[in-house]
Amino acid sequence: MKRSKVGIVGGTGYTGVELLRLLLAHPHVEVAAITSRSEAGQKVGEYFPTLRGRTELAFSDPETGDLEECEIVFFATPHTVAASQVGALLKKGIRIVDLSADFRLADKVQWEEWYKVSHPAPELFGEAVYGLPEVNREAIASAKLVACPGCYPTAILLGLLPLLDQESVDLTSIIADAKSGVSGAGRGAAVGTLLCETSENFKTYSASGHRHLPEIIQHATSRAGGRDFGLTFVPHLVPMMRGMEATLYIRRAPTSGPQSEGIEDQLSPQAVHALFTKCFENEPFVDVLPLGQHPETRSVKGTNLCRIGIFRQPGNGPIIISSVIDNLVKGASGQAVQNMNLMLGLPETVGLEAAALLPG
Amino acid sequence: MKRSKVGIVGGTGYTGVELLRLLLAHPHVEVAAITSRSEAGQKVGEYFPTLRGRTELAFSDPETGDLEECEIVFFATPHTVAASQVGALLKKGIRIVDLSADFRLADKVQWEEWYKVSHPAPELFGEAVYGLPEVNREAIASAKLVACPGCYPTAILLGLLPLLDQESVDLTSIIADAKSGVSGAGRGAAVGTLLCETSENFKTYSASGHRHLPEIIQHATSRAGGRDFGLTFVPHLVPMMRGMEATLYIRRAPTSGPQSEGIEDQLSPQAVHALFTKCFENEPFVDVLPLGQHPETRSVKGTNLCRIGIFRQPGNGPIIISSVIDNLVKGASGQAVQNMNLMLGLPETVGLEAAALLPG
Amino acid sequence: MKRSKVGIVGGTGYTGVELLRLLLAHPHVEVAAITSRSEAGQKVGEYFPTLRGRTELAFSDPETGDLEECEIVFFATPHTVAASQVGALLKKGIRIVDLSADFRLADKVQWEEWYKVSHPAPELFGEAVYGLPEVNREAIASAKLVACPGCYPTAILLGLLPLLDQESVDLTSIIADAKSGVSGAGRGAAVGTLLCETSENFKTYSASGHRHLPEIIQHATSRAGGRDFGLTFVPHLVPMMRGMEATLYIRRAPTSGPQSEGIEDQLSPQAVHALFTKCFENEPFVDVLPLGQHPETRSVKGTNLCRIGIFRQPGNGPIIISSVIDNLVKGASGQAVQNMNLMLGLPETVGLEAAALLPG
Amino acid sequence: MKRSKVGIVGGTGYTGVELLRLLLAHPHVEVAAITSRSEAGQKVGEYFPTLRGRTELAFSDPETGDLEECEIVFFATPHTVAASQVGALLKKGIRIVDLSADFRLADKVQWEEWYKVSHPAPELFGEAVYGLPEVNREAIASAKLVACPGCYPTAILLGLLPLLDQESVDLTSIIADAKSGVSGAGRGAAVGTLLCETSENFKTYSASGHRHLPEIIQHATSRAGGRDFGLTFVPHLVPMMRGMEATLYIRRAPTSGPQSEGIEDQLSPQAVHALFTKCFENEPFVDVLPLGQHPETRSVKGTNLCRIGIFRQPGNGPIIISSVIDNLVKGASGQAVQNMNLMLGLPETVGLEAAALLPG
Repeated sequence: MKRSKVGIVGGTGYTGVELLRLLLAHPHVEVAAITSRSEAGQKVGEYFPTLRGRTELAFSDPETGDLEECEIVFFATPHTVAASQVGALLKKGIRIVDLSADFRLADKVQWEEWYKVSHPAPELFGEAVYGLPEVNREAIASAKLVACPGCYPTAILLGLLPLLDQESVDLTSIIADAKSGVSGAGRGAAVGTLLCETSENFKTYSASGHRHLPEIIQHATSRAGGRDFGLTFVPHLVPMMRGMEATLYIRRAPTSGPQSEGIEDQLSPQAVHALFTKCFENEPFVDVLPLGQHPETRSVKGTNLCRIGIFRQPGNGPIIISSVIDNLVKGASGQAVQNMNLMLGLPETVGLEAAALLPG
Repeated sequence: MKRSKVGIVGGTGYTGVELLRLLLAHPHVEVAAITSRSEAGQKVGEYFPTLRGRTELAFSDPETGDLEECEIVFFATPHTVAASQVGALLKKGIRIVDLSADFRLADKVQWEEWYKVSHPAPELFGEAVYGLPEVNREAIASAKLVACPGCYPTAILLGLLPLLDQESVDLTSIIADAKSGVSGAGRGAAVGTLLCETSENFKTYSASGHRHLPEIIQHATSRAGGRDFGLTFVPHLVPMMRGMEATLYIRRAPTSGPQSEGIEDQLSPQAVHALFTKCFENEPFVDVLPLGQHPETRSVKGTNLCRIGIFRQPGNGPIIISSVIDNLVKGASGQAVQNMNLMLGLPETVGLEAAALLPG
Repeated sequence: MKRSKVGIVGGTGYTGVELLRLLLAHPHVEVAAITSRSEAGQKVGEYFPTLRGRTELAFSDPETGDLEECEIVFFATPHTVAASQVGALLKKGIRIVDLSADFRLADKVQWEEWYKVSHPAPELFGEAVYGLPEVNREAIASAKLVACPGCYPTAILLGLLPLLDQESVDLTSIIADAKSGVSGAGRGAAVGTLLCETSENFKTYSASGHRHLPEIIQHATSRAGGRDFGLTFVPHLVPMMRGMEATLYIRRAPTSGPQSEGIEDQLSPQAVHALFTKCFENEPFVDVLPLGQHPETRSVKGTNLCRIGIFRQPGNGPIIISSVIDNLVKGASGQAVQNMNLMLGLPETVGLEAAALLPG
Repeated sequence: MKRSKVGIVGGTGYTGVELLRLLLAHPHVEVAAITSRSEAGQKVGEYFPTLRGRTELAFSDPETGDLEECEIVFFATPHTVAASQVGALLKKGIRIVDLSADFRLADKVQWEEWYKVSHPAPELFGEAVYGLPEVNREAIASAKLVACPGCYPTAILLGLLPLLDQESVDLTSIIADAKSGVSGAGRGAAVGTLLCETSENFKTYSASGHRHLPEIIQHATSRAGGRDFGLTFVPHLVPMMRGMEATLYIRRAPTSGPQSEGIEDQLSPQAVHALFTKCFENEPFVDVLPLGQHPETRSVKGTNLCRIGIFRQPGNGPIIISSVIDNLVKGASGQAVQNMNLMLGLPETVGLEAAALLPG
């Protein structure tokens, strides 16, 4: 079988090198180009100690046109880079998987409000398909431009998905208390992500409003059938490299409740568990744990899995969902490969089968 | 000034050695006895590498009676041990600071339901003062038996305290998403707390109900002036040694809200911040950060401080409080020393002045 | 192609689960049995969160005979277990790959001196082939009983191998300063390997003599062509899960030296580098870095690679070699699979191709 | 007692903030000024979360002259800064404690060779006293300019000190295999010290020659009574914040050895241990462990202690010394305070009494 050529723009960050790791081992694609302005000419296997001996590829200058021979190009770049460059590639018939935030929101005004900069290509908003396969599998398969979800939106949307069309759920008061490993902050040199500043420490950040908030709200709303959706989302920084957990608190709708028994049943822990199990029964990368079991981020490290635990405490409190992913895999590069597999008509799981290390 | 003699029962765990560290450096007390059945005869300075050269003390057998010369005895033991032993000591006029869970609840039935064992001394429930100085300062000063709060209750109750008498707050639907370093699980040999099982990992645990839940509810309720108090509390395990963070989500009362402006003002972020600032203005160990600043666990590591951050997101969502402590200091041994200082009539901060290391 | 059936004795430790991870993904074998006395009946995928959904296998009791249908049986057990059990399996024609220390030494007296217990099957010493493929590839292929090297011996012997037949090297005064992640201590419940006892800490251990010392000496001596071999070996504990580094200091022979130029050339950094490059040029799992580059343990994490760096400081000091492996892969389970591949006539690298994560 | 005024130049790095932590709690000094060009005007307690509420001090511009009212000024700056500025301060009678490398070497040519820049004030070399109190206590007391030792030199020189005048020791072939926590690399923004690049990783660095090599050689040589001193020194990076360990391998002199019994006795483990014990018996900050005990970096974290373990393996191998310090305390800021205490005629241990946390 002929391998499809793919390219990566922005190969020196954590999502870039994770893409490389996955794509170099993928049986049906060939990484034909990887660009980096700062490292152009440098061999990838010398730059990343983990990839030594794995590839003869060198970083190329974004200007040299190596990307044009690719069938699919990934953008693993800071926001605005993809928006500035994908137009030209799309015109040449190259399909795009964008790991950045450029096409995750459909609303230009909102995008510019949260990202504090003009959007370079708002005319492409209409072309972009939100790359969450559990929601958009078919549209992704034929998409020209896929906007991969952010890591928090992936963990949180998968944890909410089975509930978004449930009338007995109050969608207006959802709380997502989320936690991320430090790699979420990227590979840039910064005091705040030094080992000595993050190790043996835990804290909230962006607690007054994080950029992933409008992304989650927009995509949840579009699944909620016109009902209002309200979210409080507080991210936290965990002293580890990879891994993300979101604990979701979802209340029953005010009209429902233990007194109205017919509806109550729909939100018993058993009912919620059944709902999740049913919703994800054919999903290769979503694993609903037995009721009451606690998912751990290490169980998905390096994998494309999302594992979900369901809990209910004594009394009439909210449903509690814990959703874990690897922020760099299902939360970024693995999901990008899953999208690519769909776009190329390959089995969705190809190249994404490895289990996590233990310990790991 | 003559030093008061104090003793420690159960000196080989993390709260025991933390007590020792604090008490050995305390200018007004002398550690006269420290017991450990398993290590009796062993020198403390040989057992704990950090205390080498700090003391000539050796662990003594609990039976030898060394505790009887003490003015105050601390219990840093698993539950039921203190309850079995404090009666005899109290009769001899020795005052007790219990770091275990034995006297934190006032209700025997509830205690036995959560701790799954008969309580050895329910008749002492009435004697015990809950050792949260920010609430019970005066009662502690004259108490015979102080029950030190659990670590989660300390972080959560301090983060709620200024709101518990506010009518504009909905006390029935509070969410506490809490995170603890691994030392909270103690120093016992257990697979689950090995470095290889906890490092580079994050997870919920006891999400269906943790023993600190009834403790928080009971003490919050007693401050809530007869109003109902409802809490959902989910603990998480953080891959670090020390530190605890609780993110609290508190909704406005249904009758209040942005439409009823008079009440609204009481829950604006500025108003909440003013409320907290006022409530804790004379507290030596509670530090309310400027509005919107994120407290970090490392900033309180090794100290008796609780730092509190206050946030509000766009829209009409809940008040967000982040409260951080060192689970072994303000959450255990430091608070025990603070209680001891009160009981001995000493300035409350003596022996608790050290700042955290950075990095640390 | 029909899959060969293999079995694992002792599946609940870190080398056991690492074997499982590798063997479950191996295209040419089937794990037919995995035994654990304590977990018999428990599903492997429920016991290890990382293997959930990967296998229907359950732990079986060692007595049930499930191992007898296997072509190869791995022992991932504490010492003496394999020695007690392999005799019966060998008689049935089952080949053994022993990851424990039972057959690593050829001398019963020495073995019993270091392991402080009688050896249960000294008559099998003659049958065992030392499973370091870089040395014993052919003998392994036809072996009935392979004794996988310890982790330290693997890292150190590979770092010494090209020098052992060099006359210009002083083999009597070698120093190996070695460092291991905490997983080397196993998955048993023990205070000493708790996160709270090992995190943010570094120390020597067994500095007066570690069990791997005689193993290294014996196998190095057998390659040294009758010359004396003397080693000082000090292990250290690193606050991380996986990874091992050995820094080796090797002096030139007293008769050589800078003054005797002919011989000197043989130990110039360039000459040593050429020697290593040549020695390992066909080795799939040994990677000699360019002169002066520093190998990192993370670059081999989860892989079967040994990476080697070569250094020389100003002056007439020793050759400096830094050798890194993953103690659980090339230092244990990966090497066991490499041995199995040889025994089954498979390409040596099958099932061992994955690259390390970065970050990871 | 009147407090002496002291100042700090370069307060935003790890040695700067560690100095602040120690000096703010010191009973006999007052921090009158702390300079930082980049943070001038910023309150120290807002900049460092651990110092919140501890001081009203703000960073001042180095030009404003606040330093001139100080009795002692510390430099916690990159190399060349102190050399450029101390001349003017010395002329005003201000005494200097320099934590940087500027005055650690006595030889300008050598200094410039290793630091790759012209030395701004070589005329001051003669004024500087090497600030290792265990060697230079008296000279420090009256010094105008103290050059605090580097972290590696401190750990290694203390571990060698009792042997440097022993004729039975071969001083020409010493090996120091040293390991440092990441804080040794400073607080600058750099990819190489991100948590994601250093966590779960161990490696050598600067293995072909580190700047502390000539410093150790120079000061060891000056203690060796004219004998040649030769050192191989390889540093390693440990995935932790603080802590440093050096394992030293010291051979007996060729003319001595087991055959020449008279001399042999001098290097038996017991004899070496006695030598160390005697050498350091009056040292408040050097702790020689019982023979065969392993020092741990955590036991000295946050303290000014150096703990030393002594080992000897079977056979006729080298003496093995393991020396541990906190690289930021005894290896930098704590030693600076110890020097200041000597210079001010205070008891040497004032302000340096705190024990390490456990866990910590």
